[in-house]
Amino acid sequence: MTVQLQSENIAKAVLVTGGAGYIGSHTVVELIENGYECVIVDNLSNSSYDSVARLEIMTKHHIPFYKVDICDAESLGKVFKEHKIDSVIHFAGLKAVGESTQIPLRYYHNNILGTLVLLELMQQYKVSKFVFSSSATVYGDATRFPNMIPIPEECPLGPTNPYGHTKYTIESILNDLYNSDKKSWRFAILRYFNPIGAHPSGLIGEDPLGIPNNLLPYMAQVAVGRREKLYIFGDDYDSRDGTPIRDYIHVVDLAKGHIAALKYLDACNEKEGLCREWNLGSGKGSTVFEVYHAFCKASGIELPYEVTGRRAGDVLNLTAKPDRAKRELKWQTELQVDDSCKDLWKWATENLFGYQLKGVEARFSTEDMRYDERFVTIGAGTKFQATIANLGATIVDLKVDGQSVVLGYENEQGYLNPDSTYIGATIGRYANRIAKGKFNLGGKDYQLTINNGINANHGSIGSFHVKRFLGPIIQNPSKDVFTAEYMLIDNDKETEFPGDLLVTVKYTLNVTKKTLEIEYKGKLTSGEATPLNITNHTYFNLNKPHEDTIKGTEIKVVSSKSVDVDKNVIPTGHIVDRDIATFNSLKPTVLGPKDPEYDYCFVVDENVKPNQIDTSNNELKLVVEAFHPESNITLEVLSTEPTYQLYTGDFLSVGYTARQGFAVEPGRYIDAINQKEWKDCVTLKRGETYGSKIVYRFS
Amino acid sequence: MTVQLQSENIAKAVLVTGGAGYIGSHTVVELIENGYECVIVDNLSNSSYDSVARLEIMTKHHIPFYKVDICDAESLGKVFKEHKIDSVIHFAGLKAVGESTQIPLRYYHNNILGTLVLLELMQQYKVSKFVFSSSATVYGDATRFPNMIPIPEECPLGPTNPYGHTKYTIESILNDLYNSDKKSWRFAILRYFNPIGAHPSGLIGEDPLGIPNNLLPYMAQVAVGRREKLYIFGDDYDSRDGTPIRDYIHVVDLAKGHIAALKYLDACNEKEGLCREWNLGSGKGSTVFEVYHAFCKASGIELPYEVTGRRAGDVLNLTAKPDRAKRELKWQTELQVDDSCKDLWKWATENLFGYQLKGVEARFSTEDMRYDERFVTIGAGTKFQATIANLGATIVDLKVDGQSVVLGYENEQGYLNPDSTYIGATIGRYANRIAKGKFNLGGKDYQLTINNGINANHGSIGSFHVKRFLGPIIQNPSKDVFTAEYMLIDNDKETEFPGDLLVTVKYTLNVTKKTLEIEYKGKLTSGEATPLNITNHTYFNLNKPHEDTIKGTEIKVVSSKSVDVDKNVIPTGHIVDRDIATFNSLKPTVLGPKDPEYDYCFVVDENVKPNQIDTSNNELKLVVEAFHPESNITLEVLSTEPTYQLYTGDFLSVGYTARQGFAVEPGRYIDAINQKEWKDCVTLKRGETYGSKIVYRFS
Repeated sequence: MTVQLQSENIAKAVLVTGGAGYIGSHTVVELIENGYECVIVDNLSNSSYDSVARLEIMTKHHIPFYKVDICDAESLGKVFKEHKIDSVIHFAGLKAVGESTQIPLRYYHNNILGTLVLLELMQQYKVSKFVFSSSATVYGDATRFPNMIPIPEECPLGPTNPYGHTKYTIESILNDLYNSDKKSWRFAILRYFNPIGAHPSGLIGEDPLGIPNNLLPYMAQVAVGRREKLYIFGDDYDSRDGTPIRDYIHVVDLAKGHIAALKYLDACNEKEGLCREWNLGSGKGSTVFEVYHAFCKASGIELPYEVTGRRAGDVLNLTAKPDRAKRELKWQTELQVDDSCKDLWKWATENLFGYQLKGVEARFSTEDMRYDERFVTIGAGTKFQATIANLGATIVDLKVDGQSVVLGYENEQGYLNPDSTYIGATIGRYANRIAKGKFNLGGKDYQLTINNGINANHGSIGSFHVKRFLGPIIQNPSKDVFTAEYMLIDNDKETEFPGDLLVTVKYTLNVTKKTLEIEYKGKLTSGEATPLNITNHTYFNLNKPHEDTIKGTEIKVVSSKSVDVDKNVIPTGHIVDRDIATFNSLKPTVLGPKDPEYDYCFVVDENVKPNQIDTSNNELKLVVEAFHPESNITLEVLSTEPTYQLYTGDFLSVGYTARQGFAVEPGRYIDAINQKEWKDCVTLKRGETYGSKIVYRFS
Repeated sequence: MTVQLQSENIAKAVLVTGGAGYIGSHTVVELIENGYECVIVDNLSNSSYDSVARLEIMTKHHIPFYKVDICDAESLGKVFKEHKIDSVIHFAGLKAVGESTQIPLRYYHNNILGTLVLLELMQQYKVSKFVFSSSATVYGDATRFPNMIPIPEECPLGPTNPYGHTKYTIESILNDLYNSDKKSWRFAILRYFNPIGAHPSGLIGEDPLGIPNNLLPYMAQVAVGRREKLYIFGDDYDSRDGTPIRDYIHVVDLAKGHIAALKYLDACNEKEGLCREWNLGSGKGSTVFEVYHAFCKASGIELPYEVTGRRAGDVLNLTAKPDRAKRELKWQTELQVDDSCKDLWKWATENLFGYQLKGVEARFSTEDMRYDERFVTIGAGTKFQATIANLGATIVDLKVDGQSVVLGYENEQGYLNPDSTYIGATIGRYANRIAKGKFNLGGKDYQLTINNGINANHGSIGSFHVKRFLGPIIQNPSKDVFTAEYMLIDNDKETEFPGDLLVTVKYTLNVTKKTLEIEYKGKLTSGEATPLNITNHTYFNLNKPHEDTIKGTEIKVVSSKSVDVDKNVIPTGHIVDRDIATFNSLKPTVLGPKDPEYDYCFVVDENVKPNQIDTSNNELKLVVEAFHPESNITLEVLSTEPTYQLYTGDFLSVGYTARQGFAVEPGRYIDAINQKEWKDCVTLKRGETYGSKIVYRFS
């Protein structure tokens, strides 16, 4: 069996430098919505990979990401070699005006060298389109000239701080480079006014490290209690209310400005180059007090503030004249300061600590600067923690009071071994056997590759366990609760099942209750119907530190009824009773070193007709209880599903041997797709939602 | 015996980046004349190490040189680690305006990154003084403002080409860095107007690669016939004669401006920093025609010229207002355009191809970016070539018709081996034995370390052969003649002899005549008198490719008379006859595999009293003729000296064994310093010049 990962061959991509940052991440959303493929490079010096992971789910796209400092020509060169880069949007750069006056060398070095290295590689790889993240800072104090407010692009430049000088220098590099070879280059220089707000989804936003430099993030931190009060620098300016006037622009509007600029470059005459500047601003000025009131209204909180003296370098009014962008790029702002405040407030309240969550750790393949192989631990440093891989949305580890209770591999290699036994993985599209790999849906016969005796098992060659899921979105909705949500776009071209399927797997870890809940959702996005039966294939060993096998584990189950199967593991149509202790039994079944062997599909309640495609609203029922007297750890498996496969791991392989772990796989009936009375519960039709939940509870 | 190289511990040094270049090299001369020690780094991308070698002789100082690209932080960091850098003068940078419009990325990358890396290392090593080579180009077209000609430093900047932008950006980096930490930094920004001319010595000057961009080097190349005619871009400007007006400044004046600026920084209040700009110009404008006529007058050649259309970007008048430099730096130009033309003409005619001589090759130690270990080949690629090392001004190789005829080592290691036998080296201060290492001069007894039986031989522990000579100055005065001049400052602190001695060794290779002449000069620069007896210790094997010994070599000498010595090799006072063929003999003496053994001081003419300290004007006399019938090569040794030691190499060691080469060492009498009748010829008194010549002639 050849293991295939999701294809990542990208026809033509936009390289987004600094794409994990505030404006970069919002621009990636708009790029993908406009049909562009993206590759992100970011050194994460002032941003978090989490934003990229969230972008994957927001955009339902895998986004190749490289942790690369663009000053490192060799590493950045690898990205150009790996991908067919068609254009570049260049956000990467240090951007704090105040800091730039303290450490100017770092600003010049990083911002200018980074851009030069990028342009040199573009030259080498014949990439001509470049959208540059400049800033209104290049104008400096435009009020020093008559009639330059609102500021047009023709306003003479005169930056007044090192940050502004770096942007100014890069603009002059672009102009000089364009003049050296006018036919080859297409440069769009975008001069931002004051970007604010966040994505309306609340999933991405500005996440400044340290004390925010800008008004809005500062207000947000005051509102959520991270800062005491807002400082207003001067209320004696000659404005409506005495505070200075700035041109605030919603970050989503700003992001769309980049798409407009890129499309403008795309549409350029092939034989003519371009180097042109556009202001991205609203053209409407707001005073500090106006923004303050808008934010108070959005948050419902009257923020404490103090007016202090004017800040050196501040001027009365810096409002954009955005006419050129409107005329040439057909772009203008659509959102108002009120929208920005509302979206910022959603972001701030739903992500109290931005992306920087305590109790979350991530590790990546050490071999590559590319973050495809990702393992995230939620509850890190607490008494109950789970490590999950994007590959198969797999549970790599579960630790109870510091003790690992499951089997797992150190890295993706183990999971990708064709002989490995689905350890910890999400199983789909079809958990358990499909007889002879055949099924009929909508009058059409389908044949899956046979991979288990004469049957197809666990989705066969298109199995979820070797697919890299998108995401995760990790959140920390309350003190001891962490969620990690993964998504898989299971394209019918990459599987033998019909239709494109969107699957989400959401893990919810409760540190106090020591529960890990898994919720599966599935929806068809193309095609009429597909078989679907999802479960998790974690192998437990409750006594792992002391014993290398499940020997001594005491088991009780909700019911000893199980689907009868023939010698080919195909249901006979009967339900049989197995020799196993139930919750009513006095004594548990004790697993020995060699027996009893279980690999049966147990039925939770044989009287309930299994016809639900979405069980997620069902009551969670305890189906298996396992206890080990030596470790004194109890595992309870709860689920909303009609059956659960109990498997004593007698065929474990690849670094493991027989009976090193047992699996409890709640799900739908074995081979249900071929059994008339069970078929409904595994047939997901277009427009329906598949759903189920599993909970592992420890004590 | 411990081999000691000249000490290079530098108390406090000025790091000169780009110090091998035009302005850099002239500034190094002035720095050393003003008592500064210098360390040069240069990537030699547009300059030649030869200028540094010449600087050593011009300044009589060893100048540590590193072939380092200042963009390479690691290598440049080693230089900061190696030396106590006190201040930096930063010339390194690409500087061709026209080229900068073609390859702007390279200009920005090289000039800006180089400066940033340099400033970062200065920060790390707490070096605060920095003199920056800026340019009047930062002003752009100053005629666009009213009343800005002559141009004061306050004139608004507005460079109009990438080269100017890089200078402008670096000025803004310096300003921002100074503002970030005003107490730490002392920056002098020198805005050059039009540097012209060359050092009056004719030894260093401008050596542009390719077609010169500037008026003066172009005229020089027309004058020496390398270019057809001069182009004058526009004679319809509103000036005295219709050509544009520029402010030309002699490069030596410009160099002195750097010393003035550095002294200004040195004198700064310790607690206050500085970032200040100074124009370096004459304040006097000259038209193109005025300069043209001055140069025609200096060269005596009426240069052909053609007036063509105005050049884009040229303006009428760019003359400096140099008042600030005069007031604050106490500096002003002293030389005129006429001086510049005269000096340029000397440089151009004495160095027709600048430093880039055909027939000269150099190699350096591959282990280090530092060019201390240097081997130069003159006559490279011709039928007669010599390779000479700075260490001992040693003849490393001589090739006759492609065949090596001397012994030598591949690199310095062999020569530095304490057991090596002076192979190819310059021998001094005292060639041959001094009895018991004792001598008396001016009533004072001196004792040298005994290193040969009971005697001191070849200068003992202060021997020239392990001292690195300065230079060389390599010239190509006529088609087939190459000269290489070396210098040694033999400090009495580093030797056991009295007084500081300045020795020059000048090799003249004539490719046609197949002669290598060596001329020695010596002068005391301190002390009253010193013993001095210099020779060269090349071992010849005329049949090297066929035979590993001197076997079969046929020898005849000018005279068989030789100084008689006792068992300790001390002269007895007698002259004896040795068994050796003279030019009058019918048959030559044939050297066998083991005998005859010679190690005698033969006397050229026993009737001539040896009392000359300077023999260099004597007739060159043939003293030894050697021939090998197998190779058919004849060597004739000629000299102006009274004796020659003939040595059949019976004690060769370190990679060689007995009789692999024979040496002919023309010089003064053995132990003459202790022999009353010979003492005059080896006693160099203050004010006198020691001189002698040796010629190796092959056929």
